[in-house]
Amino acid sequence: MKISPISGFPEYLPSERLVEQHFLDVIRETFELHGFGSIETRAVEPVERLLGKGGDADKEIYGVSRLAGEETADAELGLHFDLTVPFARYVLENAGHLAFPFRRHQIQKVWRGERPQEGRYREFTQADIDVVDVGELAPHFEAEVPLVMAEVFSKLPIGQMVIQVNNRKIPEGFYLGIGVSDVVGTLRIVDKLDKIGPAKVAELLVDAGLTREQADQCLALAAIRTEDLSFVDRVRALGVSHPTLDEGLDALAAVIRAGMENAPGALVADLRIARGLDYYTGTVYETQLVGHESWGSFCSGGRYDSLASDGKTTYPGVGISIGVSRLLGLLLGQKLLTASRSTPACVLVAVNDEESRPTSTRAATALRARGIPCEVAPKPAKFGKQIRYAERRGIPYVWFPAAGQPAAEVGDGRDTTNAVGVRSDQVKDIRSGEQVDADASAWQPPAADLHPQILRAES
Amino acid sequence: MKISPISGFPEYLPSERLVEQHFLDVIRETFELHGFGSIETRAVEPVERLLGKGGDADKEIYGVSRLAGEETADAELGLHFDLTVPFARYVLENAGHLAFPFRRHQIQKVWRGERPQEGRYREFTQADIDVVDVGELAPHFEAEVPLVMAEVFSKLPIGQMVIQVNNRKIPEGFYLGIGVSDVVGTLRIVDKLDKIGPAKVAELLVDAGLTREQADQCLALAAIRTEDLSFVDRVRALGVSHPTLDEGLDALAAVIRAGMENAPGALVADLRIARGLDYYTGTVYETQLVGHESWGSFCSGGRYDSLASDGKTTYPGVGISIGVSRLLGLLLGQKLLTASRSTPACVLVAVNDEESRPTSTRAATALRARGIPCEVAPKPAKFGKQIRYAERRGIPYVWFPAAGQPAAEVGDGRDTTNAVGVRSDQVKDIRSGEQVDADASAWQPPAADLHPQILRAES
Repeated sequence: MKISPISGFPEYLPSERLVEQHFLDVIRETFELHGFGSIETRAVEPVERLLGKGGDADKEIYGVSRLAGEETADAELGLHFDLTVPFARYVLENAGHLAFPFRRHQIQKVWRGERPQEGRYREFTQADIDVVDVGELAPHFEAEVPLVMAEVFSKLPIGQMVIQVNNRKIPEGFYLGIGVSDVVGTLRIVDKLDKIGPAKVAELLVDAGLTREQADQCLALAAIRTEDLSFVDRVRALGVSHPTLDEGLDALAAVIRAGMENAPGALVADLRIARGLDYYTGTVYETQLVGHESWGSFCSGGRYDSLASDGKTTYPGVGISIGVSRLLGLLLGQKLLTASRSTPACVLVAVNDEESRPTSTRAATALRARGIPCEVAPKPAKFGKQIRYAERRGIPYVWFPAAGQPAAEVGDGRDTTNAVGVRSDQVKDIRSGEQVDADASAWQPPAADLHPQILRAES
Repeated sequence: MKISPISGFPEYLPSERLVEQHFLDVIRETFELHGFGSIETRAVEPVERLLGKGGDADKEIYGVSRLAGEETADAELGLHFDLTVPFARYVLENAGHLAFPFRRHQIQKVWRGERPQEGRYREFTQADIDVVDVGELAPHFEAEVPLVMAEVFSKLPIGQMVIQVNNRKIPEGFYLGIGVSDVVGTLRIVDKLDKIGPAKVAELLVDAGLTREQADQCLALAAIRTEDLSFVDRVRALGVSHPTLDEGLDALAAVIRAGMENAPGALVADLRIARGLDYYTGTVYETQLVGHESWGSFCSGGRYDSLASDGKTTYPGVGISIGVSRLLGLLLGQKLLTASRSTPACVLVAVNDEESRPTSTRAATALRARGIPCEVAPKPAKFGKQIRYAERRGIPYVWFPAAGQPAAEVGDGRDTTNAVGVRSDQVKDIRSGEQVDADASAWQPPAADLHPQILRAES
């Protein structure tokens, strides 16, 4: 049977997977530093629950069914296409056991039945944080969640990410203030700015019934982008007033102010950001990698006044999600990141002969007991060959147990025989060639060598 | 739409998920200490590849298809039901990019379309390690992989796990030595010992054509279980000889000897262990939790001389797999494990009033900069209420920023005003009630409080 990749289902080689692990570790660690606890939801939801959520998602659902299944009364199941729909269900299902406001992170695979020819991922990993409360959600959370993401990005070797923030109430109040009542329709058109440019957007707005002047006002609003609070004056200068606009400006100013205090340069007010999804009701976020703006947003989200509702109780929330696979896929595809080795092992413990393997294993055990990842050589080959085994994997150190250590082969001429005639173990840094006496119960590699380093390629 | 759990698809509450995260972290960390690098494979394989692998697996496959998909030439896809079939495919697909012997770990969800009424999991997590080589695989790896698992178990708060080891060549050589030629059929019957007992097994063996004496010999072999090398003499005492039996005894002795040296008590020779799957050809493993033998094996595997083959090259391997979800499901279900809190946060930073939230955020940022997970209180409620917020989640410390800190409410009567009249921040251990002056850039909680502790319930 022929073996070939399946389009849209990426897989990594071990060294690429080390980069992914580093990203996921930094993401999780940062989320948890901020008190977001992990949950995972099952991969499947009833299709009925998936359908109709998230816009056009119904076209993208993978259905799941037992190949040899008898007909059952079970609900039809599908793979989740995001983590928000299952999270909303989880909150409703477990509300009695959760402490609100509930802060959770969720890092999982999701699946979308995209057309393969579009070159999109059909299986990919997302990393979400959300804060959900009962009835009302305090506005300060809208400043908190993008700042957690800003901290994640500052810890990753990826260059500068800028989180663009808007508040849905700004365009809503503004449009109402200039006499445009179809807020959602207008937003949808303005959202195409990046794709089709302002001239085409103006045309479409006029086609939709706006006057030329109204269309220009909408474009003037969308053109405002500031790293500080000056966006407020620039909006005011357009001469429009509406109570919803005031609310939106106050809310966005609070988020940007928190950004300026806590992570200067990480958040910008960008009044073009709309987010296609209807369920956002307040702050919305998108994120670009500086220098790679054409790659689109890697981290998006917003506030929704009704993440979930069981008819009696409503759960408002605010959340933001990193598209981990897409970010990594682009960075790895462009060879912008590499791992310093292809294995977690920091040390290869050489084997003198098969009979003395237990000696090598004891050295390895002593190293591992102090957290140093290592591997015992698979074969008692010539030391040169064992060193090349380490080299091929990028393992920086080779450990030579004392037993059969032949001075001629491993040494530098120094006599490593101690006073009572027992040679010491030695460790060689195979990059520099330096080889020194060492004690497996005490030797420590430099911190930078302990785990694979994820390096940004020179450009 | 009604919300209810889906049978066979378990989900955890946040505090249970913390237990699962601890297990997965220990498993991964131990695997990596031993130089096993991570890979992940896509969730789906062509159904054609899944069918016919792993015995009756074809009955258990979940098919996956786009709900709104047009007919395409794409292969029919199914969710993987283990990690071995996808790993074998990954090795063949990437052989040119892997360094052999290839050591990998893989911790992922798998899916089986089990009948829901059997109460089995249909989605669960497995954690596998395998070593795969090209052409030939050195036998010492058969001792290495169970010892990695023994180290995992020794680090988990679960009591004693015993890994039972056998070598397929022992029953094979033994059966041939007593004149029984249907080795696989005989093994299949002997494998039922735990379920139906020796009398029934003897009956079935006689039904299958063995003499009463041959059946008794098979049962005598299967009854041998030793923690040391004495199993060899006990087999010899049965008076059977065959070259394959000799090979098997030597190989098993090597594994048990390595166990005695490296993890006394963790491995036992148990000649009853057969493993149903046909592809094992040498050492086989099963694992029981002492005191819960009826729960069956939580960690199984073995050597296969042909994990994968592309017609020209054969890749022998040895692997072992922990059934993480089943183990956790039973331990959590029996309330044998709990987490000390329901959130990663170690500290709740109190908020004096909404205007001074930035002060609280700064204290939180200073704590996080030194790796202390914390959360800022959602509301500037009375301190008693903020403390109860922490209590409900098991957060051990509440931090009071200096600003509005009212001595009457938080203090113990001591004057915390410093020489220039500025009160100091204070931190309260809400379990003991002890409250002390503290500096967010220096204070450190006891190591045991930094992260949630996973505790074994007293029994």
